[in-house]
Amino acid sequence: MPGYTLAELGACLGGALVGDVGRRYTGVASLEQATSEQISFVTGEKHLAAAQRSRAGALLVSSRLSPQITQPHLVVANPHAAFARAVDLFHPEPEIAPGIHPSAHIADSAQIAADAWIGPHVHIADNARIGARSRIGAGCSIGAQSQIGDDCVLHPNVTVYSHCRLGHRIILHSGCVIGSDGFGLAWEDDHWLKVPHIGGVVLEDDVEVGANTTVDRGALDDTVIERGAKLDNLIQIAHNVRIGAHTAIAACTGIAGSTHIGAYCQIGGAAMIIGHLEIADRVVISAGTFVGKSIREAGTYTSVQPLMAHADWKRNAAQLRHLDRMHERIKELEKKLSELERKSS
Amino acid sequence: MPGYTLAELGACLGGALVGDVGRRYTGVASLEQATSEQISFVTGEKHLAAAQRSRAGALLVSSRLSPQITQPHLVVANPHAAFARAVDLFHPEPEIAPGIHPSAHIADSAQIAADAWIGPHVHIADNARIGARSRIGAGCSIGAQSQIGDDCVLHPNVTVYSHCRLGHRIILHSGCVIGSDGFGLAWEDDHWLKVPHIGGVVLEDDVEVGANTTVDRGALDDTVIERGAKLDNLIQIAHNVRIGAHTAIAACTGIAGSTHIGAYCQIGGAAMIIGHLEIADRVVISAGTFVGKSIREAGTYTSVQPLMAHADWKRNAAQLRHLDRMHERIKELEKKLSELERKSS
Amino acid sequence: MPGYTLAELGACLGGALVGDVGRRYTGVASLEQATSEQISFVTGEKHLAAAQRSRAGALLVSSRLSPQITQPHLVVANPHAAFARAVDLFHPEPEIAPGIHPSAHIADSAQIAADAWIGPHVHIADNARIGARSRIGAGCSIGAQSQIGDDCVLHPNVTVYSHCRLGHRIILHSGCVIGSDGFGLAWEDDHWLKVPHIGGVVLEDDVEVGANTTVDRGALDDTVIERGAKLDNLIQIAHNVRIGAHTAIAACTGIAGSTHIGAYCQIGGAAMIIGHLEIADRVVISAGTFVGKSIREAGTYTSVQPLMAHADWKRNAAQLRHLDRMHERIKELEKKLSELERKSS
Repeated sequence: MPGYTLAELGACLGGALVGDVGRRYTGVASLEQATSEQISFVTGEKHLAAAQRSRAGALLVSSRLSPQITQPHLVVANPHAAFARAVDLFHPEPEIAPGIHPSAHIADSAQIAADAWIGPHVHIADNARIGARSRIGAGCSIGAQSQIGDDCVLHPNVTVYSHCRLGHRIILHSGCVIGSDGFGLAWEDDHWLKVPHIGGVVLEDDVEVGANTTVDRGALDDTVIERGAKLDNLIQIAHNVRIGAHTAIAACTGIAGSTHIGAYCQIGGAAMIIGHLEIADRVVISAGTFVGKSIREAGTYTSVQPLMAHADWKRNAAQLRHLDRMHERIKELEKKLSELERKSS
Repeated sequence: MPGYTLAELGACLGGALVGDVGRRYTGVASLEQATSEQISFVTGEKHLAAAQRSRAGALLVSSRLSPQITQPHLVVANPHAAFARAVDLFHPEPEIAPGIHPSAHIADSAQIAADAWIGPHVHIADNARIGARSRIGAGCSIGAQSQIGDDCVLHPNVTVYSHCRLGHRIILHSGCVIGSDGFGLAWEDDHWLKVPHIGGVVLEDDVEVGANTTVDRGALDDTVIERGAKLDNLIQIAHNVRIGAHTAIAACTGIAGSTHIGAYCQIGGAAMIIGHLEIADRVVISAGTFVGKSIREAGTYTSVQPLMAHADWKRNAAQLRHLDRMHERIKELEKKLSELERKSS
Repeated sequence: MPGYTLAELGACLGGALVGDVGRRYTGVASLEQATSEQISFVTGEKHLAAAQRSRAGALLVSSRLSPQITQPHLVVANPHAAFARAVDLFHPEPEIAPGIHPSAHIADSAQIAADAWIGPHVHIADNARIGARSRIGAGCSIGAQSQIGDDCVLHPNVTVYSHCRLGHRIILHSGCVIGSDGFGLAWEDDHWLKVPHIGGVVLEDDVEVGANTTVDRGALDDTVIERGAKLDNLIQIAHNVRIGAHTAIAACTGIAGSTHIGAYCQIGGAAMIIGHLEIADRVVISAGTFVGKSIREAGTYTSVQPLMAHADWKRNAAQLRHLDRMHERIKELEKKLSELERKSS
């Protein structure tokens, strides 16, 4: 019989059951969209009102919110994580029979695990290796000598250049490019000379890279993304960057050459970090922030202009060109005022 | 006989003829490049001088500018739109005979309209549907259960993940990715847990998506781009975003998760809009603007730093760290000054 | 025998030999990683200490630093350029036998040089031309009538639309898109009308374009990137832009329509340049800078917010909305103070 009862979910996810546990649910949904047949979740106080209004048949909640919930629910330590697992239970990944699609072109010297799946129009070059149960989507290109570990998923149209080393359980989204040449140029007389890039890219276990994100290979040494780091879409990782373990980077961010980012950092969308910097562990960079210097201490850092109606912005922005002069005028005023005060006392 | 006379163009585009209408023109060009055999157009007062200097054989102009134009011309309500139609007349899209290229791989369960065109090395997965007269360029990948409506054009190397629903007359430029997983992560103990994304992407009729733009699928509900919205290149649309009808978004813009943008908005290039915001209809966001809060009223909004010579910037930027202190010093001065004034009066 | 002696390198690269020149080196590496079997290089004073500590077997150095170097070395005018050439000597590109992969689909009317290499799953459309010794990577798509010159390298999954003209020695990295439609729209009544783009893209000799960068075709005239210009990853070049010769543009930069950039410019990462501007030759734009007006003179230009701890930023940013008012208050203070001074004198 399809679906799960709350008792069955509790057996899979852990947690204490509250309310009618025998009813069978058929799926998961947001608090707003869920029907009485579906399960939803509450991550915190600020979603409590929505949870109380929700027509969801059951909820995953923390012990703190449990007393305020009238629906049947499962009390779990981490409702967001438990819900992620519940989604997997209700929507398991479709099984794909292993094998190599006849339209794929695999170099004779490449090594493909027997239980890997290689999709249509894939190209795998000399001496590349694809690990157990990995899936290489349609139109992907894997360069010579590159290694893909076990249980990886490459969505369609991913490009991995030669000599890249990917660990296990890596997910690469469509259009992402791993191992393109870094932007290394030497000025010679009257033109740029290309600096050959002989370093590679290392993606450690459990890294996920978003759609159309680019990770350049190192000039001499490798570009490295450590285990469990997560990259969103349209991110640029330049040559010889190192991203620490379990760091998460939101979309449209650029990280310039040789910058090292610590572990457990969170970098907001459209941040721009210049080259040759050191960013400590557990640093949080706000969205849209420009990072022009190293950050030695954990904490939250920001540099954005606040939004204004255009007319207000125009009036205020005009003064941005004269801040230094404003400062001088204040100093001058302070000096004159204290002279006057002395005289008048 | 190739080309069009002004009379023939007038019959197609509407508008009143002024001057010699029998001459045959062979093409279209900009005011600067046009020869006497070609047609150009004038959108407004600021191009009037260029129009008067132009060697174009004929022009498309508004009734307001018509008296100041000496060349033969067609008086139209909307010269820009009329010119767009004229370009189509002179440069019709090449006909492509329908059919499926033998190198394409189409799942048996996929449904392809008899008059669709499927290019080389395309992959179309299980139960996907391609509508009448749609063209799927070389190397595209269409995921399982996804639907492409009628008269769509997918340029080469586009990726559409599974379970996406595209309307009619959609244009997707090369490298764009529709339906990649949103950046949804739950923190669990010491690592990120991936939140499965079971929502889809809906692109309504007449949407155009630029090269290498990414549109993530929703977590539970869909990501939706409403009819007639136009997206330029290298844009990120995160999970569960909704873009209103006829909104135009310029390149390099990022829109974070669950933000809803109204209809008829215009969003400048490289704008960054954070997540969970509401942007009203008919809002104009200037290029380079960071939007960190909801916008409830139509109007133009901006947040950029003005450009300076680097030395000036350095001097002024130093003060940006002390604005709060400057404000305190001004308050202090005002207080002391009013005391002095009281004493001296 | 593999590798090179310093004497052999000197014969290839030029420069004066200092120290033991008979020893054979097997490779190149960074100052930090090099072993006694490897060669490294020193670009300037700031790397001198690292050079003195380095275990590299030999170095490439300038005449100015030579006296302070104890390792065997080659004195060269331009150590960075000499090193780039040395990397090529030690790591020559692997030879690829010319030919057309059987899975590629080439239109009958296309012209492919006999010594070109066309990879798997490539599509080359009607009347396209591929020059001598050029290499077209797996999954690339070359549109009708487009021309690729001699000695070009297109990495896998590049898309070139129709009617684009590429010179010689062009490098296009994976995922880049050349010739997509510009973002040209005419507003008509209640919707956007697409403006057909009949201009092309011209990439002159020695241009390099990074991964997932997009270069839109012109509306009527061409988009042009002049000889020797270098573009990094994830850059947007809009319709009718012109980039001058030998200009280098770092990643994540956007250049809007019809802007002309001079020669020998250097544009930092994540810069945003709005449309219809003129940027002079030899202009340097700092990373993260918003360029909202033309730049007529060579020099360095900047517009970024400095980074602050979030709490500091919040306090200071609040004042950014009141700069105009602060300026008024300073003027008022100056006026009142000078009145007081007059009275008290």
